[in-house]
Amino acid sequence: MAPSSAPKPPLPDKEQLQANILRLPLEHRSPDREPHSYERWLINKLMRMAGSPPIRFQLWNGDVIEPDSVEPRFTLYLTDPKALYSLVANPNLAFGDLYAAGRLEIDGDLPELMESLYRAIHSARQKWPRWLDALWRNHNPRPTGISEAKENIHHHYDLGNDFYRLWLDQAEMQYTCAYYEQADNTLEQAQLAKLEHVCRKLRLKPGMTVAEAGCGWGGLARYMARNYGVTVHAYNISREQVRYARAEAERQGLEHLVTYVEDDYRNIRGQFDAFVSVGMLEHVGKDHYPALSALISNCLKPGGLALLHSIGRNRPMLMNAWIEKRIFPGAYPPSISEFLQICEYGDFSVLDVENLRLHYAQTLTHWLDNFTASQSQITDLYDELFTRAWRLYLAGSIAAFRTGSLQLFQVVFTHGDNNQLPQSRQDLYTFPATPEGI
Amino acid sequence: MAPSSAPKPPLPDKEQLQANILRLPLEHRSPDREPHSYERWLINKLMRMAGSPPIRFQLWNGDVIEPDSVEPRFTLYLTDPKALYSLVANPNLAFGDLYAAGRLEIDGDLPELMESLYRAIHSARQKWPRWLDALWRNHNPRPTGISEAKENIHHHYDLGNDFYRLWLDQAEMQYTCAYYEQADNTLEQAQLAKLEHVCRKLRLKPGMTVAEAGCGWGGLARYMARNYGVTVHAYNISREQVRYARAEAERQGLEHLVTYVEDDYRNIRGQFDAFVSVGMLEHVGKDHYPALSALISNCLKPGGLALLHSIGRNRPMLMNAWIEKRIFPGAYPPSISEFLQICEYGDFSVLDVENLRLHYAQTLTHWLDNFTASQSQITDLYDELFTRAWRLYLAGSIAAFRTGSLQLFQVVFTHGDNNQLPQSRQDLYTFPATPEGI
Repeated sequence: MAPSSAPKPPLPDKEQLQANILRLPLEHRSPDREPHSYERWLINKLMRMAGSPPIRFQLWNGDVIEPDSVEPRFTLYLTDPKALYSLVANPNLAFGDLYAAGRLEIDGDLPELMESLYRAIHSARQKWPRWLDALWRNHNPRPTGISEAKENIHHHYDLGNDFYRLWLDQAEMQYTCAYYEQADNTLEQAQLAKLEHVCRKLRLKPGMTVAEAGCGWGGLARYMARNYGVTVHAYNISREQVRYARAEAERQGLEHLVTYVEDDYRNIRGQFDAFVSVGMLEHVGKDHYPALSALISNCLKPGGLALLHSIGRNRPMLMNAWIEKRIFPGAYPPSISEFLQICEYGDFSVLDVENLRLHYAQTLTHWLDNFTASQSQITDLYDELFTRAWRLYLAGSIAAFRTGSLQLFQVVFTHGDNNQLPQSRQDLYTFPATPEGI
Repeated sequence: MAPSSAPKPPLPDKEQLQANILRLPLEHRSPDREPHSYERWLINKLMRMAGSPPIRFQLWNGDVIEPDSVEPRFTLYLTDPKALYSLVANPNLAFGDLYAAGRLEIDGDLPELMESLYRAIHSARQKWPRWLDALWRNHNPRPTGISEAKENIHHHYDLGNDFYRLWLDQAEMQYTCAYYEQADNTLEQAQLAKLEHVCRKLRLKPGMTVAEAGCGWGGLARYMARNYGVTVHAYNISREQVRYARAEAERQGLEHLVTYVEDDYRNIRGQFDAFVSVGMLEHVGKDHYPALSALISNCLKPGGLALLHSIGRNRPMLMNAWIEKRIFPGAYPPSISEFLQICEYGDFSVLDVENLRLHYAQTLTHWLDNFTASQSQITDLYDELFTRAWRLYLAGSIAAFRTGSLQLFQVVFTHGDNNQLPQSRQDLYTFPATPEGI
């Protein structure tokens, strides 16, 4: 333990943690037996391999293991020895599973703990021996062909509109990164500003036609129709989302401008003045980038602009195993050069790339706040395991964007021979994108 | 010949063309012999392989060969049969050499002819048989190690400041793409706006330190010092340019802020708040991208921003053989994903990419206008061959940017863990970047 005069956080009340955990349907209960000396050794080793994050462990019997070189800021509580073994064997997967099951409890701010962990691991992993890298590696995402994509998307996006309504923005149910023009914007403001920012980047004009791939609950399509007078064909394979999107377009009297098609993006047909996809590329899979590129090339008119908005990376890296397995099956956020190869395949010209990384950290912070406020309702809809898993997913994502493990890229591109280009990007910034009075 | 009622341009006056050519030190003169029938066949074949551009040929004896499927807009005059054979064998190299030597003359607007040619070839080359692709391919650029770079740069940038002064902007002698905020900006306005735009993207503040790699005649370094109160270390291996840059900084009383270092960018030492390089990456060579990335990583402070401004491509492609051989030895403009691999190597986060392709076409048009106006002075400085070569290089570059064969990327990036990021790009557009009253 490092010598320091800074006050340490108090140890969590074991009874209280146990009470929280005991509400869960646990397979394993704390055996209350003494930890073996090699179990203590294993924890020390684990922490050193993870780059010595400022975490102390409290074990099933109440024993505390302090970190050996930093002042602890968080306490991680393990309910049973088996939890320890699965954490050591496969931390990427086990951390999330154990937390969801309540076999791993945390005292301290969850996003901050995850941020500390990510930072420590990021610098430590450079020095990992090869065997450890192999043991702890993430796996290739599952396939994303037409039939698999349906299952992947169903797993996540068909969880029920009532669920998402509890913690997404009230304005247009956007489940993608918002755009905080000012740091103190609300989630609602920032989500509408995102829609506006995207429309401006596409230089939409009344009467234009737009193809949208992966439209979520249809908010962008309605915004474009409502505010820019364009006709939109919006594709989505999530039945729940399409149902909501259609009802909402009808309620807003926009059915004559917006058509929601319950179909795979690969089946988009026709030619459009603009092509847009916000938050779908993560699910496309690298193998399908050439096909996506060919699709956009076919359906974008000669003078048209295309925009892809997606989570990405600074360098190629597989998705965290737990996220890919439990939350986003098939997900792969591309590195920026992998992303732009989509443009290269189709002989497109990249006009504009903007990185909104910290905007996603802020969006997720707002989501987690809403989520936490609705926690008991969510547990009623599903169960405690689900709520804990999603809380961790949101907190972990905040940490991933804060530490730069994930990025958010908006890329605007056009056919390589299109010379009808905007003179500059000045027109994006003439007026605030944030709506007044909400 | 295609049937059409549109009036054709008159054939150029042969005497006049000959008079123009005869002023040149020619090895080959028109033999005035009848062309063989296979020579006519060869021209037809050549034009079809080049995608049937709207070009008619006039041969050494006055014979005219019309294109077989389009209305001609330009006439290409060949002085001798050997010119024809070298054009067929290696058009990428021979076109420029023959034009420079006056053995290939053109009637019509040179940039427009080149644009027609580029467009025709771009679509035709997809269908070339493999043997033709191999015959006509460009070659790998020559090496760009420290000693070779010196020679490469000397070849182009040490042609004499008097020469460049004749056709670059009068404001700061910028030999890189300008930024035309408004389509009707002058070259001087647009070059100063470019400097301002770059400074804004770097978010410079008084007292900051900046490293500049490849500083040309030092205009950006002086602009940053003068207008932003920053200290600049600017590196360049062109002796002529450094001499000019130092004299100019002294004249402007900026020696206390700007240090011009006559040395290779690879020898930049120290840590800086910003790293900038405008128009040098083209000369770095792909093999040296990892080293460049490591260099920037070492010399950029934790919260610093870096900007690379470079000619690029929509997809990987070798430089035209004539440009690489006669104009820019060692040059290789990277595709956008190759470009951004520089950022990936160093675990940087790409914040902003802007493509100024058509701004470079406009810059080059202004340069060619100035060049043409100073043509006789340039021929007095060098000779007719030089003037013709450079006229073609400028005209061909206009065409390359107009047709999308070349792009111009400005890329802003920072260390992957830097969270002191600008909230948005709005601050780049608050006031016009173009100076008033010039």
